[in-house]
Amino acid sequence: MTARLDPATIDLLGVLAYGELTAFERLATDARLAPTITDKHALASMAAAEFEHYRRLYAHMLSEDVDPQEAMRPFVQPVDAFHDSTPPNDWLEGLIKAYVGDGLATDFYREVAAFVQDAATRGLILEVLADTGQASFAVAKVTEAIAADPAVAGRLALWGRRLVGEALIQAQRVAVERDALTELLVGGSLDLAGIGRLLSRLTDNHTARMQALGLQA
Amino acid sequence: MTARLDPATIDLLGVLAYGELTAFERLATDARLAPTITDKHALASMAAAEFEHYRRLYAHMLSEDVDPQEAMRPFVQPVDAFHDSTPPNDWLEGLIKAYVGDGLATDFYREVAAFVQDAATRGLILEVLADTGQASFAVAKVTEAIAADPAVAGRLALWGRRLVGEALIQAQRVAVERDALTELLVGGSLDLAGIGRLLSRLTDNHTARMQALGLQA
Repeated sequence: MTARLDPATIDLLGVLAYGELTAFERLATDARLAPTITDKHALASMAAAEFEHYRRLYAHMLSEDVDPQEAMRPFVQPVDAFHDSTPPNDWLEGLIKAYVGDGLATDFYREVAAFVQDAATRGLILEVLADTGQASFAVAKVTEAIAADPAVAGRLALWGRRLVGEALIQAQRVAVERDALTELLVGGSLDLAGIGRLLSRLTDNHTARMQALGLQA
Repeated sequence: MTARLDPATIDLLGVLAYGELTAFERLATDARLAPTITDKHALASMAAAEFEHYRRLYAHMLSEDVDPQEAMRPFVQPVDAFHDSTPPNDWLEGLIKAYVGDGLATDFYREVAAFVQDAATRGLILEVLADTGQASFAVAKVTEAIAADPAVAGRLALWGRRLVGEALIQAQRVAVERDALTELLVGGSLDLAGIGRLLSRLTDNHTARMQALGLQA
């Protein structure tokens, strides 16, 4: 297949698609930990929304003559490694992972999407990054749990820090191995100072999310 | 809410909906065991189809003034017990569970659906029982695996028998506890001889499915 899209955009579609596919799997798996049918319903609905995003990214790649399997392949290892190193121990940890992890990923992808040349691809990426309802649901449930037992806040704050740490390890690995993707970001209009500002925006948003949960970042 | 549907039909919608919701969770979870991205894609697509069935049953209950949570509640324990007692140990066991388990459930529900008075409900049930592609996918993959290593056939045949055994235990529990649902079947037009014939139809279909996999029932 001869793709019209540049390698960096294909990389971005690949990592996003595989990220959505695994987010789907993990949310659906965590739905098993849900304490009530209502919670299970909520989490399963979010998982189904992630699958719909995956399906759209997959269809877009096909329509652009990009082989989706090929595009996803380089990201299987780092994305799986992130998930394997952060299995939630209970329902609350699963919710925080969905909220904090997806939030961080979404912020990052949204920054990168700004540098994508192809307008249709950029539009689709911004659409699939739309919140699937994790945010308000997770905030409500975690806040409730901390109110009922303030002692869990310490453990959950540590969990939040661990998620960010593991995400950064894998992101760095991808950055080293996928030159085109890194170039997209660095070569776009970002100099070192720009990257510094990007990281500080990501960190600020992460801190705000942890605060919304009533947790220290 | 005052439901227009009779208790047996509500029970049937409840057990079907909860069955689809858990089938979704389990298929999505088993997608993690998939050896390739293509396999993962196939299993995740089936899981998403199960969720769409669940969503339609849920919407139908709401439109009929049935509380879906209430309708599902009596079946949470037996359906969860079935899944908890049959965790697949690997990818092949997961596929067989999807194929054999769903096949058995589908055959049974299709028989029961014949006795549902409400035409709209009956039509919807028959629609959501449509095959989501498990069958041909599972048969192809399992046949391939047995060809590559004939020794696995014995273990997988035992696994198939275990699935049926556990399913029967839970079905019997439901039959004892849910009078209306049992009445639907027994009081419909089925006498004891009819139930005997029903069981033999279910068993014959199960044997045919195991044979399609190249396994002894």
